[in-house]
Amino acid sequence: MSRTRLEVFSDAVFAVAITLLALNLAVAGPGHGPLLHQVADHWSSFVVYLISFATIGLIWVNHHALIDNLVVIDRTLALLNLVLLLFVVLIPVDTATVAKYLPLGGQDAQVAVILYAAAFLGMGLSFAGIFEWTLRPGRLPQPVPERTRWKARLRFGAATILYLAAVAVAFVSPLVALVIIAGVPVYYIFERAPALGSPAGARQQ
Amino acid sequence: MSRTRLEVFSDAVFAVAITLLALNLAVAGPGHGPLLHQVADHWSSFVVYLISFATIGLIWVNHHALIDNLVVIDRTLALLNLVLLLFVVLIPVDTATVAKYLPLGGQDAQVAVILYAAAFLGMGLSFAGIFEWTLRPGRLPQPVPERTRWKARLRFGAATILYLAAVAVAFVSPLVALVIIAGVPVYYIFERAPALGSPAGARQQ
Amino acid sequence: MSRTRLEVFSDAVFAVAITLLALNLAVAGPGHGPLLHQVADHWSSFVVYLISFATIGLIWVNHHALIDNLVVIDRTLALLNLVLLLFVVLIPVDTATVAKYLPLGGQDAQVAVILYAAAFLGMGLSFAGIFEWTLRPGRLPQPVPERTRWKARLRFGAATILYLAAVAVAFVSPLVALVIIAGVPVYYIFERAPALGSPAGARQQ
Amino acid sequence: MSRTRLEVFSDAVFAVAITLLALNLAVAGPGHGPLLHQVADHWSSFVVYLISFATIGLIWVNHHALIDNLVVIDRTLALLNLVLLLFVVLIPVDTATVAKYLPLGGQDAQVAVILYAAAFLGMGLSFAGIFEWTLRPGRLPQPVPERTRWKARLRFGAATILYLAAVAVAFVSPLVALVIIAGVPVYYIFERAPALGSPAGARQQ
Repeated sequence: MSRTRLEVFSDAVFAVAITLLALNLAVAGPGHGPLLHQVADHWSSFVVYLISFATIGLIWVNHHALIDNLVVIDRTLALLNLVLLLFVVLIPVDTATVAKYLPLGGQDAQVAVILYAAAFLGMGLSFAGIFEWTLRPGRLPQPVPERTRWKARLRFGAATILYLAAVAVAFVSPLVALVIIAGVPVYYIFERAPALGSPAGARQQ
Repeated sequence: MSRTRLEVFSDAVFAVAITLLALNLAVAGPGHGPLLHQVADHWSSFVVYLISFATIGLIWVNHHALIDNLVVIDRTLALLNLVLLLFVVLIPVDTATVAKYLPLGGQDAQVAVILYAAAFLGMGLSFAGIFEWTLRPGRLPQPVPERTRWKARLRFGAATILYLAAVAVAFVSPLVALVIIAGVPVYYIFERAPALGSPAGARQQ
Repeated sequence: MSRTRLEVFSDAVFAVAITLLALNLAVAGPGHGPLLHQVADHWSSFVVYLISFATIGLIWVNHHALIDNLVVIDRTLALLNLVLLLFVVLIPVDTATVAKYLPLGGQDAQVAVILYAAAFLGMGLSFAGIFEWTLRPGRLPQPVPERTRWKARLRFGAATILYLAAVAVAFVSPLVALVIIAGVPVYYIFERAPALGSPAGARQQ
Repeated sequence: MSRTRLEVFSDAVFAVAITLLALNLAVAGPGHGPLLHQVADHWSSFVVYLISFATIGLIWVNHHALIDNLVVIDRTLALLNLVLLLFVVLIPVDTATVAKYLPLGGQDAQVAVILYAAAFLGMGLSFAGIFEWTLRPGRLPQPVPERTRWKARLRFGAATILYLAAVAVAFVSPLVALVIIAGVPVYYIFERAPALGSPAGARQQ
């Protein structure tokens, strides 16, 4: 398994998913009231679009940081990566569901946000699985020392914990759950993925 | 024909097809009953989504294993590869058809699963064609010895035989046919594609 | 302008267009009669799908053959390539139009096939434009000799002439026009793109 | 962050967005009057399709010119690039909205064109942000001299100023605003992106 091909395939999936997100913003068209009102009624679509876009964008950045340093790319990593992508491609659909049901409130809004948070949770868990794989001997140019592993796990796993919280909170308040979900990409803008060994000389791509 | 370009094009097709799969999971939206019921009624969509995702994912892994070792990439391979992709891009549509008709049962469910299995069968046959191409002299860094060819063919061709069985079984029981189809990616998770000669020094990408 | 980036962008456009083709094959779903009848009524969709898939596939192969040998990739080539892609992305939509209107016959079928042939004609003319660009000095590792230029032009341009014929014929018989359009990729399966100078040592990608 | 991965991801997003544009050209299908009339009524779709295609195509060319020369690709650039793509993926949806509402005229046509121009304005501002990033020391093989910076900014920023004008003009005349928007890619066909230091020896991709 070559790094290039794993990256090209993953990047293409990220790219298609992130572009499909915007299709949810389409208005119903003529005959459904003034366009200005239609756009204004679409506020939930715009908010969820921004959250999903930022999240997929940051996953892509972190995915890159994780894969880029690896010395070896094998079939197991490719399969773990497919599990990650399984959840990534769910995001456009779940984004559309939240956009439609959030303004209605009630149980439907809760269900929509729980599904949305669950897709992110699955994504976070898959990412944690890939991270564990990278910690095994020989995967990184320099092994991550035992004493910093848990710190690294915590940094990478912070998103997973937040998504778990979002699933739970969505039963009570879908809006608060969305705020938590929106916080994850903001967190990763400022908190870089932990440096996983020096890549110096490790790749020649 | 460069390896890179064959791979980038194929990976992009795989990526778009795998991402389009999830669009079938979209619910009808407000006015069609509680969201929880809509999602529950969608069980067939989720099951077929998982089967199709796993199958396309494993094809991609095997495609990589097959192409990666080749010493030469020519126009004939590009054409065979196009035939493979012809069936790959049918999968999202056939997945949607199964998702819609499986819960209804009867002849429609049979037809839907037969179409679905037939697309996979076409894919399997195309893959077998590419495999045969790789066995010709000068294609692999080390030729596959005569005595292991049939073993290799059987490993690669197992999927094709299973898909043929699925087409036949679907006339009687669409559900059993789906179980067979779902078994193929599970089989390939554990059974690696046969090692096709050592790639050592064979490529400089 | 790097060759890699021109190729990745073009390949992604080809890949998305070729995958979108299959979406036209989706049946209307439950409540529109037996699935078997729906599929049978879709014969025109399947035929046009095959024609469009084969055509985009062969364009991709020829595009590769043309770009791969070039010594220089510049902004003018990138703009000519964009004109080519402008017509490539029209193909899925025009394919859908032909699939819908061909079975109805009459003037609508004529208009649909004229639009379809016109998109291919535009594509052929853009390709001819790129080909002319490659004939200028310094573009190929070895200049194409004057005496073989017209032969090369004819080989590359055969498609354009056939598409022009298809546009004209479609006014009389849309079906005969489709047969002509279907003949182009069949022609290019057997007739390779002319060898444009030896690429030996010309690229280090 | 490797240049290759930033480019592959960006190119895939550009490619999907540019291909989705054409989907807006689909006619309603049989039962909606003669196909010739449907196509003729679609004039606004064709015009906006051409404008959007040319604009995304030229952004892609300029994006390449900007990224290709950089000595360093970092996380900040990746985030700025994501902001640019956030606006790029809005273009297919906003194109569809203009196509639907422009022929109706009135306030709806104004709102549609304002949204369209605003997406391009956001894109222009993001591009300007990336451009500023490239001016910091160590980003380019040779720093852009102080005295030519404003000239370079003006060249790159011309689009942003025109899009700002288009937003303002759209309140009065959506058609004139569209002419301004259409002028931007025409401008960039003739005005190259400023040469940002010599790339000689600066990259080894």
